[in-house]
Amino acid sequence: MRTLKLTLAYDGTAYAGWQMQPGKRTLQGALEETLLRITGQPTRVAASGRTDAGVHALAQVVSFQTVSDLSLEVLQGALNAELPRDMAPLALCEAPPNFHARRDALRKRYRYVIYNHRWADVFRRYYSWHYYRRNLDAAAMDRAAKALLGTHDFRSFETHSPQRATTIRTIYDIFVARGSGPEANVLTLEVEADGFLYNMVRSIVGTLIEVGRGAQGETWPAEVVQAGDRRAAGMTVPPQGLFLVRVEYAEHGERPV
Amino acid sequence: MRTLKLTLAYDGTAYAGWQMQPGKRTLQGALEETLLRITGQPTRVAASGRTDAGVHALAQVVSFQTVSDLSLEVLQGALNAELPRDMAPLALCEAPPNFHARRDALRKRYRYVIYNHRWADVFRRYYSWHYYRRNLDAAAMDRAAKALLGTHDFRSFETHSPQRATTIRTIYDIFVARGSGPEANVLTLEVEADGFLYNMVRSIVGTLIEVGRGAQGETWPAEVVQAGDRRAAGMTVPPQGLFLVRVEYAEHGERPV
Repeated sequence: MRTLKLTLAYDGTAYAGWQMQPGKRTLQGALEETLLRITGQPTRVAASGRTDAGVHALAQVVSFQTVSDLSLEVLQGALNAELPRDMAPLALCEAPPNFHARRDALRKRYRYVIYNHRWADVFRRYYSWHYYRRNLDAAAMDRAAKALLGTHDFRSFETHSPQRATTIRTIYDIFVARGSGPEANVLTLEVEADGFLYNMVRSIVGTLIEVGRGAQGETWPAEVVQAGDRRAAGMTVPPQGLFLVRVEYAEHGERPV
Repeated sequence: MRTLKLTLAYDGTAYAGWQMQPGKRTLQGALEETLLRITGQPTRVAASGRTDAGVHALAQVVSFQTVSDLSLEVLQGALNAELPRDMAPLALCEAPPNFHARRDALRKRYRYVIYNHRWADVFRRYYSWHYYRRNLDAAAMDRAAKALLGTHDFRSFETHSPQRATTIRTIYDIFVARGSGPEANVLTLEVEADGFLYNMVRSIVGTLIEVGRGAQGETWPAEVVQAGDRRAAGMTVPPQGLFLVRVEYAEHGERPV
């Protein structure tokens, strides 16, 4: 039995999210079916985290165990050929026997893209949230976002409350920036943390939007954190602007292809 | 009766091309149905040129006549609300009574995007051609392309031969460039001319690819032009990498919204 670590890009548009659900087309389901077809063995995969319907990944990380003795090269080539066109295997390597993509993740980085223009960009309709009401102040949003840096109880930014040991998380990096030139209508938020609560990125964006549109001052997001109450925060913005950018792990001697 | 000039962006993925065809979903058909719904009048539209199935437009130009007395502002807003989500009205203005988007076009600019990497980019699958066989030499392609600048008989780059007065066209600008940073795998060709023969851009790209992959020398595209024979040129590359970027007209006093 080998444990493998797969890095996977996907366009989440056509899927009901990562997690297997009966009767729905999910990313986990598509990957497991493909592995069954390639290896002949039922294979259960574990992702670094579930992504919701419509959410994308530039580099999701997935672990699984297999008895297949196909080389990494051959297996990655087979995945590339057999996966649906909206999923792509970026890297595949051997991992230690006990490696688990969710349990062992140290940091995750997400991006949220806002298209801020009166008229929609047809090429971004599945890859951004179209905010057309007014011109957002990206610099104010960026300054306000800095209050979220560090270790806080982020329960105000969690939309469901599953049984979690804690709602304390550490944000290592967060910024909001407006593009330039042909990207002048594009606002990007990126945030990196040791973990995220359910819908945390989308409700952080919904909160910063209130600052960007001038409805709240720059100190308000800090007050939302203090409140410790979901009702204090802004809306949960739509899923299609959200991308899982990167997941970091401790070095454990994977051998890249 | 008013003559209007509409600038339209569209994602061509879901369409059987611009031109109306019975039983098929076309861009022209979608626009004419929407204008009928908005104005209550059957309306025939004329584009600067037809785009094939899967080809996109950043700014197609369309002319049409209407008896509607809706203001430009209201009509553009209605188009924005009523058109399918993969079509967007970027601008709408009054034009002289005899304005015709195809007949009056002076220059058109196209872009062709090649994604040049071993593994596909899932987010570009409908917006580029995935060329994975080898690393293309963009600088050699760019140098070779310069032979096409100026006025030539481009019949070698025409895949069908409709009744045309002439196959002579003038290319004002052409370049091939590789992106940098996160765009390092993206090759872009742009070409601007007074007009294009059928599949001309896609067969120019197919010809330059032969230089980029090292199968032909940099002087070969000039020989292809000289040959005056479609069989001398390279392949016609797939449609989904092609974008109509811009159409230019003489000033004729349109009033922008």
